[in-house]
Amino acid sequence: MTAFPVSDLTSSLRVAPGPIDLAAIDTDAAPGFDGDKDAGTEALLDKGPELADLQERLFADGKSGGHRNVLLVLQGMDTSGKGGTLRSTVGLVDPQGVRITSFKAPTDEERAHDFLWRITNALPSVGVIGVFDRSHYEDVLIARVRSFAEPDEIERRYDAINAWEADLVAKGTLIIKCMLHISADEQKKRLLARLDDPTKYWKFNPGDIDERELWPAYQEAYEIAIERTNTDVAPWHVIPADKKWYRNLAIGTLLHDALSSLDLDWPEADFDIEAQKKRLADEKPL
Amino acid sequence: MTAFPVSDLTSSLRVAPGPIDLAAIDTDAAPGFDGDKDAGTEALLDKGPELADLQERLFADGKSGGHRNVLLVLQGMDTSGKGGTLRSTVGLVDPQGVRITSFKAPTDEERAHDFLWRITNALPSVGVIGVFDRSHYEDVLIARVRSFAEPDEIERRYDAINAWEADLVAKGTLIIKCMLHISADEQKKRLLARLDDPTKYWKFNPGDIDERELWPAYQEAYEIAIERTNTDVAPWHVIPADKKWYRNLAIGTLLHDALSSLDLDWPEADFDIEAQKKRLADEKPL
Repeated sequence: MTAFPVSDLTSSLRVAPGPIDLAAIDTDAAPGFDGDKDAGTEALLDKGPELADLQERLFADGKSGGHRNVLLVLQGMDTSGKGGTLRSTVGLVDPQGVRITSFKAPTDEERAHDFLWRITNALPSVGVIGVFDRSHYEDVLIARVRSFAEPDEIERRYDAINAWEADLVAKGTLIIKCMLHISADEQKKRLLARLDDPTKYWKFNPGDIDERELWPAYQEAYEIAIERTNTDVAPWHVIPADKKWYRNLAIGTLLHDALSSLDLDWPEADFDIEAQKKRLADEKPL
Repeated sequence: MTAFPVSDLTSSLRVAPGPIDLAAIDTDAAPGFDGDKDAGTEALLDKGPELADLQERLFADGKSGGHRNVLLVLQGMDTSGKGGTLRSTVGLVDPQGVRITSFKAPTDEERAHDFLWRITNALPSVGVIGVFDRSHYEDVLIARVRSFAEPDEIERRYDAINAWEADLVAKGTLIIKCMLHISADEQKKRLLARLDDPTKYWKFNPGDIDERELWPAYQEAYEIAIERTNTDVAPWHVIPADKKWYRNLAIGTLLHDALSSLDLDWPEADFDIEAQKKRLADEKPL
């Protein structure tokens, strides 16, 4: 096991019950970690083998009758690094054991169902780490900011989300909810960087700048959503994300601590080991 | 670009038209590569950044109106390393751009459809690298060996596969078909290793030993399937797979060469770059 104080980092990111003031959380901080960028990058890479081991135990458990899995929910403003985080953290484990879903604007078919329909369809099977790049939270974030749904319906959704998540947890899913928290200035820098790099033009959309005018409304929508859905069984984490290395280390640590907490042993053999060895030893030439 | 002679390796793995004799292909060889294990492992890691770059170009292209994608089909006897290969090769690129499907025995619903139904459902979208761990080829391999289908139906399937794959290629998919080729002795070693390692019991199934009695029938089924479906548009590759490092290098190289052959540029901006920079510069405080 690593000597790195993982619990400190995880616990410092967990959102306390009650109202939350995002403006009071320094987006450039590195709570729970004392080192610099190099140390943070190395600390995450050091976690790689153990993370891969923990993920394989989960996978093995799922293949052997277990009922556990993990759902990592990543939310955050544009350019907050949901994609980059995935490369750096989920990229450390076996890609076969991970199911990533990027939620876009719902299709006509999805709109014809309850908002949790497409989310439910994308849930990971047992043994698998599911990752949501955006999620059902868009249905109380952009939906609120842009009035895609009536206030009553948004109200209903907070409760529906809590009930749905509680049911998932009861069935064996460990849910890790994360908001990647960047400042408006940092977003501006990242948008400008995309405009300066021909390999990144494809990531830029002029609509991203229009959306910035709604920044305060989005922050408020996040505050309300986090407060309303910050349950004991599925708590929120706010990750200062201006420092990419810290953001990656934080998500990697949350994932590591979550997998560790499952405390999964390797499945025992459900066959007679020596008898099987003997069968192979006695085998006739093929 | 790398100085490593990728084309030699790729071309040496491609199956020539006509009958194929798997017994004549040395499962412990390393065709197209002169180095040893260390050199091969390093050569694959060296490819990592370029592979990631090529994958991102494909992804960007898909997000920008392109119609290309890649389908990597991995077949091979139990323990031939389909999973390990994925970790070592697909693990080098952004997990968001990869969709892995492991095909098991078909469910009742899948059985109630044509054999290509579930395969079609699992195809990658544009811009994505799809990976099949087992595939539609099981429907002419185990289905033939274990008589799950009538000989006439198996015959029909070879033609159906060729027509289906040709259509995929015509629509923009690059198909890489690989058989990971191990010897029966190597499989025995790997099964015994699973029985000696408590972290691997979960991968062992006594039925795997029963299946070994059908080894010659499987080899014959592979030979027939490869010959019948080794088309110009979707050719087969047989990868000597007793050496894990070579197997990984080979798949990484095939993937690299395939992505390179798409010759994709970064998408051009479909907006006025300077005007967007000015909008950000002139922005009122949020």
